Amino acid sequence: MIEPRLLRGFRDTLPEQAAARQAMIDIIREVYERYGFLPLDTPAIEFVDVLGKYLPETDTPEGGIYAFRDEQRRWVGLRYDLTAPLSRVVAMYPDLPLPFKRYQVGPVWRKEKPGPGRYSEFYQMDFDSVGVPNVAADAEACCIMADVLEALGVERGAYIVRVNNRKILNSVLETCGIGWEAEGDGLSETGLMVLRAIDKLDRIGISGVGELLGAGRSDESGDFTAGAGLEPEQIKRVLEYLNTSSRLRTAYCVELESLLAASELGREGAAEMRSINEFLRSAGYDEDRVVFDPTVVRGLAYYTGPVFEAVLTTPVFVNGEEKRFGAVFGGGRYDNLVERFTGRKVPATGASAGVDRLLEAMVALGTIRGEQATPVLVTALDPARMPEYHIIAAEIRSAGINAELYTGAGGIRDQLRYADQSGKKLAVIAGEDEFSRCEISIKDLWLGRQLAQGISERKEWLGTQPAQITVPREHLCGEIQRLLNRTTQGNKELA
Amino acid sequence: MIEPRLLRGFRDTLPEQAAARQAMIDIIREVYERYGFLPLDTPAIEFVDVLGKYLPETDTPEGGIYAFRDEQRRWVGLRYDLTAPLSRVVAMYPDLPLPFKRYQVGPVWRKEKPGPGRYSEFYQMDFDSVGVPNVAADAEACCIMADVLEALGVERGAYIVRVNNRKILNSVLETCGIGWEAEGDGLSETGLMVLRAIDKLDRIGISGVGELLGAGRSDESGDFTAGAGLEPEQIKRVLEYLNTSSRLRTAYCVELESLLAASELGREGAAEMRSINEFLRSAGYDEDRVVFDPTVVRGLAYYTGPVFEAVLTTPVFVNGEEKRFGAVFGGGRYDNLVERFTGRKVPATGASAGVDRLLEAMVALGTIRGEQATPVLVTALDPARMPEYHIIAAEIRSAGINAELYTGAGGIRDQLRYADQSGKKLAVIAGEDEFSRCEISIKDLWLGRQLAQGISERKEWLGTQPAQITVPREHLCGEIQRLLNRTTQGNKELA
Repeated sequence: MIEPRLLRGFRDTLPEQAAARQAMIDIIREVYERYGFLPLDTPAIEFVDVLGKYLPETDTPEGGIYAFRDEQRRWVGLRYDLTAPLSRVVAMYPDLPLPFKRYQVGPVWRKEKPGPGRYSEFYQMDFDSVGVPNVAADAEACCIMADVLEALGVERGAYIVRVNNRKILNSVLETCGIGWEAEGDGLSETGLMVLRAIDKLDRIGISGVGELLGAGRSDESGDFTAGAGLEPEQIKRVLEYLNTSSRLRTAYCVELESLLAASELGREGAAEMRSINEFLRSAGYDEDRVVFDPTVVRGLAYYTGPVFEAVLTTPVFVNGEEKRFGAVFGGGRYDNLVERFTGRKVPATGASAGVDRLLEAMVALGTIRGEQATPVLVTALDPARMPEYHIIAAEIRSAGINAELYTGAGGIRDQLRYADQSGKKLAVIAGEDEFSRCEISIKDLWLGRQLAQGISERKEWLGTQPAQITVPREHLCGEIQRLLNRTTQGNKELA
Repeated sequence: MIEPRLLRGFRDTLPEQAAARQAMIDIIREVYERYGFLPLDTPAIEFVDVLGKYLPETDTPEGGIYAFRDEQRRWVGLRYDLTAPLSRVVAMYPDLPLPFKRYQVGPVWRKEKPGPGRYSEFYQMDFDSVGVPNVAADAEACCIMADVLEALGVERGAYIVRVNNRKILNSVLETCGIGWEAEGDGLSETGLMVLRAIDKLDRIGISGVGELLGAGRSDESGDFTAGAGLEPEQIKRVLEYLNTSSRLRTAYCVELESLLAASELGREGAAEMRSINEFLRSAGYDEDRVVFDPTVVRGLAYYTGPVFEAVLTTPVFVNGEEKRFGAVFGGGRYDNLVERFTGRKVPATGASAGVDRLLEAMVALGTIRGEQATPVLVTALDPARMPEYHIIAAEIRSAGINAELYTGAGGIRDQLRYADQSGKKLAVIAGEDEFSRCEISIKDLWLGRQLAQGISERKEWLGTQPAQITVPREHLCGEIQRLLNRTTQGNKELA
């Protein structure tokens, strides 16, 4: 006998969750399309060198991705993000009109050490504009993230989009006398350590960052993290930059301009921030939605300009405990990505939604419901009358209501238990009596569940509702519609 | 430099195609949900023994699937269908209420020799009912396939659902004196050869089948296929069965009952067909939608009862040539699938849509349009006014119209060329003049394309339309709506 099991780090998405995810994806898709992004789909498997980053060192890929050899013994692997495939597409179809604005939704795979909330397969939903030198595209990306969250039901004030610019960060490194450019297009080791320290400000505070910039830092558990080893004067300058956090974007730009006046890169970055601010201001996206934040780094080395992320600022409770979700969107500008294929720079910007994380937060906030998609079960009291039950179900479906015809085993008792377990709101019942009188019975399972939960004490009207009604056959759909409207209403009232 | 390339047998789905596929999937999803099926999602990677069928023989999987070893050197692989994961799910969650009605859409992977129209990654969209002993579930599956095709715009008469029953086929083998049961739950080698021959009736005719049942057959190219080696008397009986093709289902059941009266299995199969017929009859699915067909076999060895498929009967032309699509849906009853995990039989039935094949056919028939999802481009004549252009775009979007703000490089000429190349219908233009007069210009690209194609000769009114209009700023959305309605209307008239 084979044991039914999954690999560690992998999981099924059962109907309730899958329906909620689909509902969420549909909403996000609509916003992306509204801004002119079009869908793209690419294969799960790519050549490892096309995926980049995780090139085979000697003979085996360095890990991190699911890789294996094809028939010709070439290394191929499962995509670990949706950006590498996008850059391949842009390089591969030179006739693609630019700007190319695409979105893509799908799973990506990473061979990470599984842990709570860490999976080896997860969904991303990216939108990117390729061939867009103007930072208006970055400002637009910030609007899109905000629009998506509001379309998902997150209230203004319950989230914030944070924007920074890698040119500014690099200019800070530069003005501190830290060489930030490594060979190739990456950052120097010290530069990376400084950015990593800045990235941690949220969690470890300004003094913690100071330690990480200097000799190093021990956390509460005693674990020691080596520092970047900067001179005190250098540390002072980085911390000075981190203290520039004017809440108002215009004031922040003024601060930046004065702080980084000596650096060409800094002036460029500040000018970009000013452009973004003007765009956002006139578009009506004020500081209650988008702020400039000196601590935003975004990990990926390939960002070259504005970087941004969206975070939930309202407390989210999962199983009674407050849970920190981190960024639900992250992105930025990357002008070098197609270069490794074609040698030419193609300016691009975009962001990626962490679908699973976002979904967990939305379900916890109650803005997306993993609602049971089938509200009605048509029972089969007398299996010999199956064709007639089908006609009843078909009639309900014609009224635009999803309905399941019971084709399982067992009598009416089993059928009603199934209806209840599978979360149906109503069960339609018809036997000899009903057929002979041209009537039909509807059992109100939703009501039963409310009463069982003692909700009736809170809402007296519930107690006065009948648990089962019998109506003339021709009133079936109308009655079902009425009862379903009432459960929707009831759900709202009881919420 | 890295060459941007894909593995053989893999392909990208570019926006037009991806939008069409999404539109098709949404329509199918709605039908599935109407019948009470709920979404399920499972990982791409499973243990190879869980996937079944393609077990490692000695040390390497037999091929057919993309398999590799995990960290613990266990064989894992990419799923090759959506049925094996479903059976694992049913076995793994014993608390799942039965019947479990789920649909799943997603890619599957097969290491097949790539060829025209044969890919190593393709989409399936399955619906299955698990825990349903009653063949009403099979009849329902036939209704669903018909409903899906009609929802996709295939007219009644342009498709047909064909139904048969493995019990009948096995009973034919039995009454011919062919042992059909192999060790385990498969078919005997001779049994398989006979079924394969029957499956080819469409292509090789009754005499061809006769040859394949006997000594073998040479096709036009001279290739010889070995036959099943049946005795003349046995062949006669199989052909007799294949001649029972009454077009009317009721008459066909009578024929079957007389032909297979001596076999218990045959009587069972015929009774199931009769039940299915009654269900379909009272549901209003007559012979113009669902027929019984003795030649339907469906390849997979695991089917145990009714088998069915949907085929297009209308000629479909792709690039001017008629193309045969084969079955766009295929399925049947399989009662043994969970058994290999749990030892218990769980009756199940369902069908799978070949999404890519179906999509190609629907696009060729013109029922699903790979329509450009973004009808409007807001150009940026003066890049300094970008925030104002964004406001214009935002206003259009608020009216529910997808609109792209141009953030690419180049002047108005490049922008209009891009608008045309990317299939926009309208381009909105505003410069110094328009802003000072509170006006706005709309260029009609759709009209330009129609005129360029010489369509104006066919529809004179097109020639009388202006290629560009300037309207008061506050009339912008109304004018865009009017022009888009007209292009939709125009598309219909010109179709």
